[in-house]
Amino acid sequence: MGQVIASASMSLDGYIAKDDNTIGRLFDWLQNGEVELPTVDDRITFHLSPPSAAYWREWVDGLGALVCGRTLFDFTDGWGGLHTIGVPVVVVTHQVPGDWVEAHPDAPFHFVTDGVEAAVAKAQEIAGLRTVAVTAGTIAGQCLELGLLDAVAIDLVPVLMGTGRAYFGGLSLDEALLGDPTVCIQGDRVTHLLFPVPEASSHGG
Amino acid sequence: MGQVIASASMSLDGYIAKDDNTIGRLFDWLQNGEVELPTVDDRITFHLSPPSAAYWREWVDGLGALVCGRTLFDFTDGWGGLHTIGVPVVVVTHQVPGDWVEAHPDAPFHFVTDGVEAAVAKAQEIAGLRTVAVTAGTIAGQCLELGLLDAVAIDLVPVLMGTGRAYFGGLSLDEALLGDPTVCIQGDRVTHLLFPVPEASSHGG
Repeated sequence: MGQVIASASMSLDGYIAKDDNTIGRLFDWLQNGEVELPTVDDRITFHLSPPSAAYWREWVDGLGALVCGRTLFDFTDGWGGLHTIGVPVVVVTHQVPGDWVEAHPDAPFHFVTDGVEAAVAKAQEIAGLRTVAVTAGTIAGQCLELGLLDAVAIDLVPVLMGTGRAYFGGLSLDEALLGDPTVCIQGDRVTHLLFPVPEASSHGG
Repeated sequence: MGQVIASASMSLDGYIAKDDNTIGRLFDWLQNGEVELPTVDDRITFHLSPPSAAYWREWVDGLGALVCGRTLFDFTDGWGGLHTIGVPVVVVTHQVPGDWVEAHPDAPFHFVTDGVEAAVAKAQEIAGLRTVAVTAGTIAGQCLELGLLDAVAIDLVPVLMGTGRAYFGGLSLDEALLGDPTVCIQGDRVTHLLFPVPEASSHGG
């Protein structure tokens, strides 16, 4: 099976969004470069620096599915039926949003109501050998605590937010050791880092 | 005058210590390498990986003074009268610890009771063209907010602590933009990063 990797842009002080879910200057790096990258959404084109563009292309090319929580799904209204990066999405939720499903009959969205572990399993089934991305926040935190993550991708942005929503939500772990970064690529207003999660941690040992 | 640089080891989620001031695995990188670095304290020898040793030597060689808060001073009992890295220390405090000063008449310690700005000025006077290091936590946060910092050095450790004491204490800034890192050196269980503070930020503009 493919790897399961949490991924997000994060401020230097550990936040993926402000408390009101706005993102301030966290995504500057998606629009400050000369390399145009169209998305499946005609209205959204990224403009990345060359190093970020190369990193982003490889990341997106390797993706097979995305796991997110219900909050993000609702906040984006399910990305209008197709996620910006074009992959199937598995949504962890207590209740399937029946109206939305009816309005988007062909959308590659799956709703899993029996927890994050089942959602990741579903995403891996869809992704095959490709990577399953997990959105940061509560879902990523639960995945880490359940030992489901193989790696943590952080697009580290040189901004301090003071307060906000943490990458792993409210972790109840005392301490989690990750490996040294296997990727460290400097873009413009971002440093792309990839931290492996050691076997012992990734299987709850 | 020399630069004023905040510096600390920090977990991936932004903490420089746990809530009880213990440091967990944050300082592993100071003792997991083959390069021996003695300190002015006979009881403390660092063992660093070669990249960390080179980075550390350059950092310490360039230092002229250190600014810290009273909490850290008390916690270490003033490092017994000489800081581990051997530089003069300026302590921000409400009250000079008279007994301690009497017990350590020759210690290169200065106590400043009229705020962090005066303490940094005193440290710069002592340091001359050399760097003034500012310890992380409340003092670093105040320096950032007052526009006193030229750069922020972060020894980023691949560990998640969940909660703890933040690098800049409780920042009241809405958002502070730093520059892209000018240093990025991979050690063993640490990534050494140096972020410049832009002119506009560093002078409160």
